[in-house]
Amino acid sequence: MTWMLFDWAGTLAFAVSGAMVGLSRRMDIFGVTVLALLTAVGGGMVRDVLAGITPPVALTEPTDLLLSVVMAVLVSGGYAALSIDRKQRHTMTLLYELSDTIGLASFTVTGTLRGLTLGTGDPYVFPMMLGVITAVGGGMLRDLMAQRVPVVLRMDVYAVASLAGAWLMCWSWPRWGADTASWLCFFFVLLLRGFAIHYGWQLYHPRPSSRIFRRRKPPKV
Amino acid sequence: MTWMLFDWAGTLAFAVSGAMVGLSRRMDIFGVTVLALLTAVGGGMVRDVLAGITPPVALTEPTDLLLSVVMAVLVSGGYAALSIDRKQRHTMTLLYELSDTIGLASFTVTGTLRGLTLGTGDPYVFPMMLGVITAVGGGMLRDLMAQRVPVVLRMDVYAVASLAGAWLMCWSWPRWGADTASWLCFFFVLLLRGFAIHYGWQLYHPRPSSRIFRRRKPPKV
Amino acid sequence: MTWMLFDWAGTLAFAVSGAMVGLSRRMDIFGVTVLALLTAVGGGMVRDVLAGITPPVALTEPTDLLLSVVMAVLVSGGYAALSIDRKQRHTMTLLYELSDTIGLASFTVTGTLRGLTLGTGDPYVFPMMLGVITAVGGGMLRDLMAQRVPVVLRMDVYAVASLAGAWLMCWSWPRWGADTASWLCFFFVLLLRGFAIHYGWQLYHPRPSSRIFRRRKPPKV
Repeated sequence: MTWMLFDWAGTLAFAVSGAMVGLSRRMDIFGVTVLALLTAVGGGMVRDVLAGITPPVALTEPTDLLLSVVMAVLVSGGYAALSIDRKQRHTMTLLYELSDTIGLASFTVTGTLRGLTLGTGDPYVFPMMLGVITAVGGGMLRDLMAQRVPVVLRMDVYAVASLAGAWLMCWSWPRWGADTASWLCFFFVLLLRGFAIHYGWQLYHPRPSSRIFRRRKPPKV
Repeated sequence: MTWMLFDWAGTLAFAVSGAMVGLSRRMDIFGVTVLALLTAVGGGMVRDVLAGITPPVALTEPTDLLLSVVMAVLVSGGYAALSIDRKQRHTMTLLYELSDTIGLASFTVTGTLRGLTLGTGDPYVFPMMLGVITAVGGGMLRDLMAQRVPVVLRMDVYAVASLAGAWLMCWSWPRWGADTASWLCFFFVLLLRGFAIHYGWQLYHPRPSSRIFRRRKPPKV
Repeated sequence: MTWMLFDWAGTLAFAVSGAMVGLSRRMDIFGVTVLALLTAVGGGMVRDVLAGITPPVALTEPTDLLLSVVMAVLVSGGYAALSIDRKQRHTMTLLYELSDTIGLASFTVTGTLRGLTLGTGDPYVFPMMLGVITAVGGGMLRDLMAQRVPVVLRMDVYAVASLAGAWLMCWSWPRWGADTASWLCFFFVLLLRGFAIHYGWQLYHPRPSSRIFRRRKPPKV
């Protein structure tokens, strides 16, 4: 049940973020839908293939596909209905960041949970890797398709947030059960990524003869 | 038998389209061959992995690999032998579109057929998804490798044609058997995509305060 | 044992090459680490999924992951500690080519060996394909993520070297055993690629009305 909840939340959120990238590239309604679909179910399909679950759940259970398509059409409709001009730019960016962050947090939960349930190998490494791959996989596909450097390589504290959340989940799962661990992980990733966006946190950029961990002004986004 | 026929047709057609993209990027003969191979067998490999058939047939049966390599060499040779100047531009575009369309139609058939034969989950959703993924997967890999936005996101009525054909096939398969359904699906996708190219059909591009389904001039290709 | 050795060598070498591409794109330390990881374990994960080994070994055995992360941090640290200016450009290029070549040779060995051990299908085609895919897969992911045309399509005698090595290995494996075949294949790929870089070997670039196999000056890298 909890799994379903986070799966749906992540699917809806990533469908919104994929559709928004598609709209910003002036794609037609089908391109927007395909990009929304890929972003929403891509990470989960990679997760299932890596975990040896074939065919992936996303292809046999039509719910997630339907959710993504509906969401893509809604977002496209809303985009066309509202006259969005320069002033709304900020709102758009906010909505994009919000949906991307909710997707990241939700899919970290579902990926890690799947890894914990399978119980192969190390009780930390495999679930954490599966969680991070599920969380960043959809966005990676979206960015590759839209010809931009994937967010996971550009953004500071993106995959790190997912990794920390996955670790927290692996740690709390045997102690407090799946439900508590899931919610804990979800809110932890949400907050960590939220703070990182708000305060412009940056990891260390290695460059020749730089002072280590020197403070730099966040770049304009 | 029918499956083999469409598999070969799709492999040959996509090998031609991949080789042509490689040639237009001034790649060497091995780059051209790799791109032709990826385009021709990439979609089928993704299909087999998603369907849980590992190792993929393309890696154990050398026929498709050989066909692609031979085709890539033939296309490269033909390209070098003919002095192609500006006037032949139109012929090149036509040949590219033709091979891409035949590949799309053939692989929609093989993908959907594989999904129907496996018979997992919903009798429509899974075969249709597998058909579309097989049909657009090779071209997607080709375009990602050649650093351009994938055709499935750019072109109007591309994946839609494949999806409609896959639906038609799922509908007619239990009624008229695999052979009739395959040919029906093949010609349906071919015609739909052909009309779309010829008449410059476009789906709705959502944009702020646009009138819905307004007619736009097709862009110059 | 031999397998482990080549697996570690390839992982370390590709981690270095991935980290260097990330540094040259001015990514932060996590971006660099992610790119190093993808390059180092990406090819092996694709190999395992194609061979039907799920979950891939890289996700259940943390050794390779750890090796890559440590290597990425070391390379980043070294890059920041040394003041690298124009004069060191040559050294950087050399180091990059060296690590990429060692990775190519090592992963050709591990991929081909896995294919030979599985023993599915043709005794040449499947192991050779798996070897080449493993060897070029990681670099392909690295280049796609960093938004450049994959090295396998750009570089002359790159996948060809891997393919020739894989063939040599398939041929010598039943004659002289796994160990000899592995070392033979490793050094063969290393030498072939090394000569190709040093002498600027180029395959035939097909172009309209070109004389076949005409000599051309190597382009400046």
